[in-house]
Parts: sequence; structure tokens; C-alpha cells
Amino acid sequence: MKSIVKAKPGPGAVYEDWRIPSIGMRDVLVKVEATSICGTDVQIYDWHEWVRDRVKPPFVMGHEFAGRVIEVGKEVSELREGDLVSGETHIACGKCYQCRTGNAHICLNMKLRGVDTDGCFAQYHALPETSAWKNDPKLSVEIASAQEPLGNAVHASSVADISGKRLAVFGCGPIGACLIGLCKSFGATKIMAVDVVEYRLKLAKEMGAHVVLNARTDQVEKEITRLTDGRGADMFFEMSGAPSAFEQGFKSMRPGGTAVLFGLPSKKVEVDIANWIVFKDAHVRGVFGRRIWNTWYKTAEVLRAGMVDLSKVITHRFDMEEFSKAFALMTSGNCGKVIMYPNGRKK
Amino acid sequence: MKSIVKAKPGPGAVYEDWRIPSIGMRDVLVKVEATSICGTDVQIYDWHEWVRDRVKPPFVMGHEFAGRVIEVGKEVSELREGDLVSGETHIACGKCYQCRTGNAHICLNMKLRGVDTDGCFAQYHALPETSAWKNDPKLSVEIASAQEPLGNAVHASSVADISGKRLAVFGCGPIGACLIGLCKSFGATKIMAVDVVEYRLKLAKEMGAHVVLNARTDQVEKEITRLTDGRGADMFFEMSGAPSAFEQGFKSMRPGGTAVLFGLPSKKVEVDIANWIVFKDAHVRGVFGRRIWNTWYKTAEVLRAGMVDLSKVITHRFDMEEFSKAFALMTSGNCGKVIMYPNGRKK
Amino acid sequence: MKSIVKAKPGPGAVYEDWRIPSIGMRDVLVKVEATSICGTDVQIYDWHEWVRDRVKPPFVMGHEFAGRVIEVGKEVSELREGDLVSGETHIACGKCYQCRTGNAHICLNMKLRGVDTDGCFAQYHALPETSAWKNDPKLSVEIASAQEPLGNAVHASSVADISGKRLAVFGCGPIGACLIGLCKSFGATKIMAVDVVEYRLKLAKEMGAHVVLNARTDQVEKEITRLTDGRGADMFFEMSGAPSAFEQGFKSMRPGGTAVLFGLPSKKVEVDIANWIVFKDAHVRGVFGRRIWNTWYKTAEVLRAGMVDLSKVITHRFDMEEFSKAFALMTSGNCGKVIMYPNGRKK
Amino acid sequence: MKSIVKAKPGPGAVYEDWRIPSIGMRDVLVKVEATSICGTDVQIYDWHEWVRDRVKPPFVMGHEFAGRVIEVGKEVSELREGDLVSGETHIACGKCYQCRTGNAHICLNMKLRGVDTDGCFAQYHALPETSAWKNDPKLSVEIASAQEPLGNAVHASSVADISGKRLAVFGCGPIGACLIGLCKSFGATKIMAVDVVEYRLKLAKEMGAHVVLNARTDQVEKEITRLTDGRGADMFFEMSGAPSAFEQGFKSMRPGGTAVLFGLPSKKVEVDIANWIVFKDAHVRGVFGRRIWNTWYKTAEVLRAGMVDLSKVITHRFDMEEFSKAFALMTSGNCGKVIMYPNGRKK
Repeated sequence: MKSIVKAKPGPGAVYEDWRIPSIGMRDVLVKVEATSICGTDVQIYDWHEWVRDRVKPPFVMGHEFAGRVIEVGKEVSELREGDLVSGETHIACGKCYQCRTGNAHICLNMKLRGVDTDGCFAQYHALPETSAWKNDPKLSVEIASAQEPLGNAVHASSVADISGKRLAVFGCGPIGACLIGLCKSFGATKIMAVDVVEYRLKLAKEMGAHVVLNARTDQVEKEITRLTDGRGADMFFEMSGAPSAFEQGFKSMRPGGTAVLFGLPSKKVEVDIANWIVFKDAHVRGVFGRRIWNTWYKTAEVLRAGMVDLSKVITHRFDMEEFSKAFALMTSGNCGKVIMYPNGRKK
Repeated sequence: MKSIVKAKPGPGAVYEDWRIPSIGMRDVLVKVEATSICGTDVQIYDWHEWVRDRVKPPFVMGHEFAGRVIEVGKEVSELREGDLVSGETHIACGKCYQCRTGNAHICLNMKLRGVDTDGCFAQYHALPETSAWKNDPKLSVEIASAQEPLGNAVHASSVADISGKRLAVFGCGPIGACLIGLCKSFGATKIMAVDVVEYRLKLAKEMGAHVVLNARTDQVEKEITRLTDGRGADMFFEMSGAPSAFEQGFKSMRPGGTAVLFGLPSKKVEVDIANWIVFKDAHVRGVFGRRIWNTWYKTAEVLRAGMVDLSKVITHRFDMEEFSKAFALMTSGNCGKVIMYPNGRKK
Repeated sequence: MKSIVKAKPGPGAVYEDWRIPSIGMRDVLVKVEATSICGTDVQIYDWHEWVRDRVKPPFVMGHEFAGRVIEVGKEVSELREGDLVSGETHIACGKCYQCRTGNAHICLNMKLRGVDTDGCFAQYHALPETSAWKNDPKLSVEIASAQEPLGNAVHASSVADISGKRLAVFGCGPIGACLIGLCKSFGATKIMAVDVVEYRLKLAKEMGAHVVLNARTDQVEKEITRLTDGRGADMFFEMSGAPSAFEQGFKSMRPGGTAVLFGLPSKKVEVDIANWIVFKDAHVRGVFGRRIWNTWYKTAEVLRAGMVDLSKVITHRFDMEEFSKAFALMTSGNCGKVIMYPNGRKK
Repeated sequence: MKSIVKAKPGPGAVYEDWRIPSIGMRDVLVKVEATSICGTDVQIYDWHEWVRDRVKPPFVMGHEFAGRVIEVGKEVSELREGDLVSGETHIACGKCYQCRTGNAHICLNMKLRGVDTDGCFAQYHALPETSAWKNDPKLSVEIASAQEPLGNAVHASSVADISGKRLAVFGCGPIGACLIGLCKSFGATKIMAVDVVEYRLKLAKEMGAHVVLNARTDQVEKEITRLTDGRGADMFFEMSGAPSAFEQGFKSMRPGGTAVLFGLPSKKVEVDIANWIVFKDAHVRGVFGRRIWNTWYKTAEVLRAGMVDLSKVITHRFDMEEFSKAFALMTSGNCGKVIMYPNGRKK
């Protein structure tokens, strides 16, 4: 089958033939109809530092997808051939304390599809039934694929009540943009979106941000304070990993406010524990992945209800063999979610 | 000044002259521009059973209002002449355990305006600064008056996260209707409204209910179960006090669901503790009044953001002297919120 | 193997030979070293009304146990021969909404060991690995068996913060007694225990109750109010199912308080929704079973730390063939937890 | 009256006569029977950097005290001459968003006694009735004075459920030591205390720590991991402000764990946002002061119930004129809480 393969250490990847995976008794085999690129894929492609110690080429890249089940293992109990499925990237061990207490998304022995195992940038993909999510058959394959990053936003938006809140979102890439759409639908009364890329601020605006701020040219802290009548934002979401965003976010947050941290800084960040957190009696929440399957249920629910228009976030589409163009676009930042079709586009 | 006075025990009230209240050092005097009728006022007017033991005629009725401050006591620190204020009906003692721990709305020694003290169905009304809420000067006086019942809905909608929930609302009077509008704005994915009065179901629909059910003609429990794919509602709000609503609500709620109880049944209700609550590991919350001032801030915020169109709930307007028509209309149920003007209507 | 078998509809049970269960690929076979009697077992034995529609004799009774694994299925991954295990009575489907969102304890398709399947009042018992709990090998088999009801108490005590609370416990059978021990260890500052059986009040006292009240002779509501300086209890636990306990509990609870409902009344209870729940802005929680496996981890943890002396609650021991004496004792109420030994007592 | 006065910028203070304060209509005058020294007082004494920009000498130092009311203003409503009172150090404005929504402890316009106003290291002290706490008359004056720092520990211990938790406490000064005592009484199953001063580790042990670790000589992260069977601590409390404590605390915390931050680092701390917070889906809470009056009620309750033996934390006593010895001792770290008597010691 055709696949995007990280063939060896170093930047880049190749488009080449790979064996069609065989499945175990509790696995399903999926014909991949759409797959989408995540920031993690770009880091693997570009051979970032953390990647070097973690991955073991050669392997098939990719973790976001949607496709049809074409074969099921003998002990598969719910899924059937023809089902439209997506997959949870985080493959949990099922045995550690976190897994056994409703927090499999932070499993101690987590494996990631397309990082620790062969991924889904391929015509076919095999996964355990316990990692598969059965979609509403009416969902488009593009949205079904992109619902995993939407799930990150759903998880982030669920750690505190959004209704009636004035909040800031730092970082308006695909996940930040989804989050803005969700916060709008969940009753945020003022959404202040911050980024440095105009393309993304435009997307933020389309998704429902009341105000957009460019961190290069606007005085972010001052503006948020002004826009909240001097009170400070009730909460902020850090979706960018940019060190300056932490400072701006915490400083413009009101005492008693909530900080939701999702973005991954490339190194340690200097944090003013006293003024940003202690004196404010602040609530800070790290947010990772998606709760399994709580987040998926809620994601399906908001999609069905039309609460977030994910199609606005999906800005570009490629045949899979054009992957190098797709990755270059991702690197530029001038895009939302980018879809690739491993088996050609549906007409 | 002209006032609606509960002159003596028994049904009815009279429209007559009353002394203009004098104010204490920490009070303000308000010229009442709009006042609205609550179900409690109707029960006092009709001389319900609980009223007989509680009130001491003669007194001025009424508790919901908006008006301009025309005089301030010497120790009043924030309010000024000309401010547009409303008032929190519940006058807390400030000294009991609840008052001193952020729960003044359930004060042990609570007094109610228009029940235990002279009310606001009058040209002028005096109240402590600590019970007054300063409105956005741009708010219409009708909405400023009706924001107190909106506040009940805001409090009810705040006891659990609404986003992504499928929920039922039993009772679609003014507060239920406001609640439906809020739940819609706060991200409920399916709102099922239940009442027995068609006028109110129509209002529910206008406020954003996805489905309306008439408890006289529809099989409520069965329908809610069907509309939630057999899973049951994630939560329900009981806003009616009707005994049948408790049964329908609890039975159609999913295991692990949340019941929010606001309506006041006229007598004890038979509750199937085992099947409705224990086996379901259910969350049940009584909801009373409004949190002071948390709820008021949130109410102001959702009004400013246009999240609930309170003008749809305000269905009728009267000069105050036409009060008997206004009360008759309230009794019929064929209305939303009813406004009266003690000092004549603004043109 | 020797077993206690519900042989046919109607009261009673027989002690007779039963086939040793064979195990599936993911099951384990256990030699039962201790088993304990639950109120549910007594209701099956006595042939209560709900039992008639539910169970299908003949079947082996019993659900609480501890024993050694003597055989494991081919796909069993963690358990080994010789492990000391107990079992979660509630066998969840793993596929419903509740199961997939961390609430398997309220599974829509729940089966109960010893009710819907063959139980553990037998020399051997088979169960799926996913329902087995591996004990600390140093735990006594009696305590390992009785930790399931302790788990009910752990779950109940975990729905609200106990520290610094003045609280009432209605019903001081084995689970109520465990709960009292836990509340004591978790920082309750005043525990008021209520029952009608002196034996149980004595047990309550031993487990750490500060005050015991006999509902037959004491004015419970008045006493609790007095013991809390007129403020009312911060919370109460209803562990008895007695209708009068609900009235006493809610009336003596302070505004803003919490009611935890675990006991199962035999029929509907008249509840004063307005005064007990709405006006008090009360929190009410139904509590069922144990959270899987959150509660088990916490139970193991409090046992290891010596936070509750379960041996005080275990008051009687029998060889399994003396089961009719054991059941008669349970019916009398003059006991705590009753243990039976299907394979004879360890010396 | 005799007072400890910060007479001018720079290190030190003087013991000299000061005018007895006159009281306003809503104030009370107190004869100070015991006063205690806080770390903040030491920083003012030593003229730390933050102090220079904040305080305006000359003023009376000190904020922790207990004393008898000897005069009440005309509008004082609850307090009477002879009442034994302590005082909340944080004097809130009562008008900002935080004050009006139950979070006066993080008032936007906070003033601190003994920092922004004259303090209580004096024979007499005046304070608003709204900042005074009426003590149980049976409480010793030393404990009544030291209950404010105990309150910090009560507030910290209340942000998450302690029961059944394995937790680490970094920093075993008086507040950390109180916290250890509370966690023990609230059901922590393993308390691991960390400090660098042996005197304090000894105190930690006495207050109930299961294990003490000296950060100079022990491998803290490794030890905590080992002591929690490799799982990591469920939560940790950072009470020291030492940068290394943050690293050790976050690294040894399990995924899904809780970090409670109270200590004030003297400058920014490098935080590994990705590994410490995001990947762990961690809960982080800043904790400041005491909730008014929630924390005070709980503090009084745990003192009355004997849940924490504050007398163990009170290690030294001085007449107020010996203040320079008292401050030198505080600086050494070889003490717990230090009491001074402005009006001589009771025999």
C-alpha cells in the first residue's frame, strides 16, 4: 500500500510502498478515506529534538484519520465492516492506576499512533477495537478525521464552566480556532483571541472571537484589562506554547481566575509563581489529549448539533502523494487544518 | 404616593395612597419606573395558605423593580442620585453562618421585600444600599425589573455545566422560558421543554427549545427517552412544582444525571428514592433565589452580551392602577412576564 | 463442590453439591477462603418482592468473597495462580455510555454476581479477570471479603469533603459503621449516629461516633440541631432506607448542606421538596455501589493505612454449612458483618 | 502605649511609645494579650526588597494577635467589651468584584494590617468589626493569635479532598507543620515532609508526617516515587518558595495529580510547563490568605475538635520588649511559631 514513511533519522519523509497491516483478534482494519496533519506530525517530519530520542524509523507516520472498516478480528464485538471509524491516537495500557480510574488519557505506559506504532498516512490502517470510535455515518470523512483535534478543544473547554465568562485564547491554529468556536457556543460573553499570524486571527474572527489581538503589534495585557473593564479576564487558554503568552495570560487574568494550559513550550518557561498564581489564588489546569471516551461523546454531540463549524477550520486538501506541499503549508502557518486523501478524493 | 396595598387578610389588594418611605443612613430612595409581577405576588394577592401565616397587612406589595435613585443616606458609599438600580429581594442578615460564608441567599434570618417589608408596587421605594444593584444605564427599565427572575434562571443554569448536554425543562413560565434561552446560549445540544399550557410551550419554542412536549397529551418519559437515543436526559430542570414532573423528570434522566429542583410543590411529593436517585448515583440540587452577587454579575453579563432576549419573555404592560387586570392575566397563565408602571409609561 | 443454592422460588436455600465452574479465556477460577453475607443475600434468601421478578433459580448465592486464584484463562494478562483476589459484584457491559465514560458502576446493562449469575457461596468461584481485584497478600481473607461493603462506605464518603464537617449517619449496620470509621479518619469534627438497634449504636460508638441517638427514644431532629449550635448538620448520610430518617435528616441539615442517599426504602417516600431541598439550596447525591476501580484503590489505601478497623465490624464467623444460623443472625440485626468459610477455617 | 515601630526605612525596628488608636463608629479597640511573628514581619524588619516599595514608616508592625475588646464604636452590632477576638489581616474593600462574589480574600484593593496600616505589635490595637473574629472564650490567647497562620494551612488543605491521598509537603515551618497536622487528621494515608532544616523536620514528624526527607541529603524525587510504589504522589503542597521544591514536587507528582502552591519564591521560577503540567493533565492551585470567613469557621472547628495540636507548633515565648531576640530566632529557622506578650505574660 502507499504510505508516508519516516524512513530514517533526519528531516523529511518518503512516499512509498509498505506492507498492508495484518490484524489481531481484537483489531479492525480500516481503508483510510481522509487523514489530517497535526503539529506533532510536522515535528516528526522536521526531526525536532524530542523526536530523536523517541521514534524508531522506519515507520508509517500520521495519527488523525477517518475510514471504513474492511476487516474485523474474531473477538471484535461491536464494529462491523462498513462502519465509518476514527481512532483515538493515545493507546492506553488499560492496567495502570490512571487507566483503571477513568483517566486512560494520561496512561503511564501510553503509546501514540504514528509515533510509537505505524500510523495512518497510508491506504490502510489497523487498530484495536478499543481505540476506535464509530462515527455517525452521515459525518463527512474530512470532519471525522479532524474531530480528534476538535476533541483537544472540547477537553480544554470542559475543565471549567465557560458560560458568562470573558476569556482570552492565546494561539489560533486549528485547535485554538475550534476552541473559539466552542467557547462561543458555550456562552462566553467576550472572547479575545491572540496570535501573531494574521491568517489565524482572521480564522479566529470567523470562528466567533469578539476581539482579535496581534501579539506583535498590540499591547495584549493592557488591551485585555481594558476590554474587561479593568477586572481582568475570567480565564485564559494557552494554546500556543509561546513563553510570552504565559506572561500576558497570567498578568491579564483576574484574581480567582482560571488558566488552561495546552500549548507545549519548547523549553522551560519563567513563571512568576507569587504574582501570577499565589496572590491570585489562581486555578491552573494542564490539559492533555482527550478524555476517553467522555470527550469523544461530547465532540460527536457538538458536531451533530452544529455547534462548531469545523469545515471553516479545514482550509486545504491534498492527495496524499502531494504530502511535501502539505507539510510546507503547515510549516508556514498560513492554513487551518490540512486534509490528505490516501485513496483519492471522493467526487 | 400611589401604591398597591395588601390592606387586610383575604384575597385582593387596593390601589391607594401610602406614605413615601423615609430612608436610613445606609439606604437609598428610588423612584420606581417599572415593576414586574412574580408568582409569589399572585399567591399573596390570592391569599394562599402559606401567606396567611407569614404576612402582616397592611403593607405595600411587590419585589421586582427598576428605578432611579433620588436620595441617598449619609453613609451610602457607591450609589449616586440618578443611578438606575434594581434590588435583590432577599434581604440577608449578614451575620449568620451562611451570610458569612458566601451564601447570603440562604440566610437563616432572611427577609423578603414585599412580604416581610414594604414592597415596590409603588411610586417610591426605599432599600439598603447593600441590597441594591446598579444597572448598566443603557438597560431598559422593563428588562432591569425582570432581571431578578432571569437571575433565578441564571442561578439554576449555573449549578452544572450545560455545554453539550441534552436536557429537559419542566415548566415554561417566565423563569423556565429564561432558562431555556440561557441553556441554548450555554451550549445545550438538545432542549426538551415540557408544560401543559400551549401559550407557554410556544414561548419555550421561541426561546430556543428544540422540542416541546405537552404533558397533557404527550408521553413525556417515553419521548425524552426516545429523543436521547434511549440513553436518558443528562439533566432536567424542575421549574413547575407539579408532582408529575418529578416522576417524569427522574425516570427519563440517565444514570449519573443531574436534577435541578426550583419549582415549589404545594405539598409533599412521593419520591422513589431507590430507582430515581440511589440506583442512578444521581446528583440533585435544590436551587433558591440568586447568589449574591455572583448571579447578578452573570445576569448583567449575559444581558449585555445579548445571550437571552428577555424582551420576548415580557409579554404584557400595564399602568399600575390597572393592577387587577394584570393579576387576572397572571392567574390565567396566558402570559410571560407582566410589567406595571407606577409613574406612568415612558414614551 | 459444596454450595449454598437457591434451589427454587420461595424462602430459604439448600447446602448441596454443584458443578465446579469452568472458565473462559479471560476468566479466573478462585478457591473461596472467606465469603460474607450482604443484606441483598438476606432478601434473596427470604424471597423479597423485588427478588421474585429478577432471579432465576437454581443458582449459587453470594457475592462478597476472598480467595486464591487456582486457574487462569489463556488471555488473562495480570493475575497469576496464588493471587489473593476479591471481586467487584457489579459486572458491567463495558459498552454503554456510562461504562465508556468512567461510570461503569452504573452500567445500563449491569449484571450482579449471585443474583444474575452463579455466586460465591461455594468452594470455588469463576469470574472475569476484569471483575477481579488483586489484594495485598498480607490482608486477612475476612477483611478482603468484607472490603466490598467497606467500598460502599468509601464511595459514599467520597462524594463530598468530610474534613471539618459536623454530620449525621442514619443507619449503623455494617456499611454505616464502616462509614462512621471513615468519617472519623477523614476529619469529621462531630459524628452523630442514629439507629433503632442498641447493638448497632454500640458498634457506631466503637467506630468513632461522637454521639449516638436512638430514633425510638430520642428526638433526633431536635438533638442534631442542638448539637450543632442551632446551625444544623453540614451533611447527613442516609444508610437505612427508613422513611423517618429522610425527614429527620433533611430537617436537621443546614441550608446549603449535603444529603448522601444510600439506603433503599421499600417503597416511595414523601419528600417535602420545597422546605427540605429548594429553600435550602441543598446538594443531594444518590450513591450506588463502588466506582470501578477508583473506590477499590481508595479502599485498599485506607485499609493499608489502618484508617478503619474493619475487624470491629466483623462480629461473627461460621462454617458455610451453618448458613441457616448465619442468615437467622443477619435477620435479627444483632450483628455486624458475618463471615462464612466454604473451605473450612484457617487455624 | 508600648509598640514595636518601624521608625524609618532600613533594617530593624524600635520599641517605643505610640499613640493609643482612636476608633471609628464601626471599629473595636482591643487590648492585645498575645501577638505572633509571621515571615512577613521578618521581611519588613529586615527591609526586603518588596518592602521598600510598599510600606511607609513610621508605623506599628505586626498582624497576628489575640486580645480583649475594651471599647466598641456606636455602630458595632455584634461584639461586646470583654470578647476575645483575633483579626483577619487582609482588610478588604467590600466593593470590588472579588469582594462581592465571595472572594474577599483576593480583594483588588486589599490592605494589610501592619503593612499598610498600624499593626498589633502594641499594647492596644483598633480594627473594624468586619475584620474581627470572635473566639471561643476558652481558647488560649497564644493559640488564638496563631490561628491565623493555621488558617493558611486550613485554606490550603481545603482546595482538594485529602482523604486517602499520598502527599508531599515541601516546607515545614509553622504553616507547613500545621498543614501536616491537618492532613493527618483529614485522612492522608502517607505524608512525606521535605525541608532542609532538621529542627523543622523534627517538628514535621511530631505533627504526623509518615516520612521526612532532607532536601540537602535525600534524593527527594526518587524517594517520593519509591514511597508511592512508583505511581507518584497524588498531590503536593509547596509551602517553602524554594525553586528546587517546584521541580521535585511536580516531577514526583502522578499524572492527574494536584499541586497546591502557597510559598512565595523571591524571583521567577523556571517551570517545565510541558512535562510538569500539560502532559500530566495536572491541577495546580494558588492559595492565598484565608477565605473570609469560611476558613475561620473551619479553623475554629478543627481547633475545638482537637484535630491539630497547635501548641506543638508554638515553640517560643517572649515579652514584647525582647523583640530583637524573637526576630533573631525567627531568622535562624530554629523555631516554630514565636509568641510575644505586649501586656506581660499571664501567670
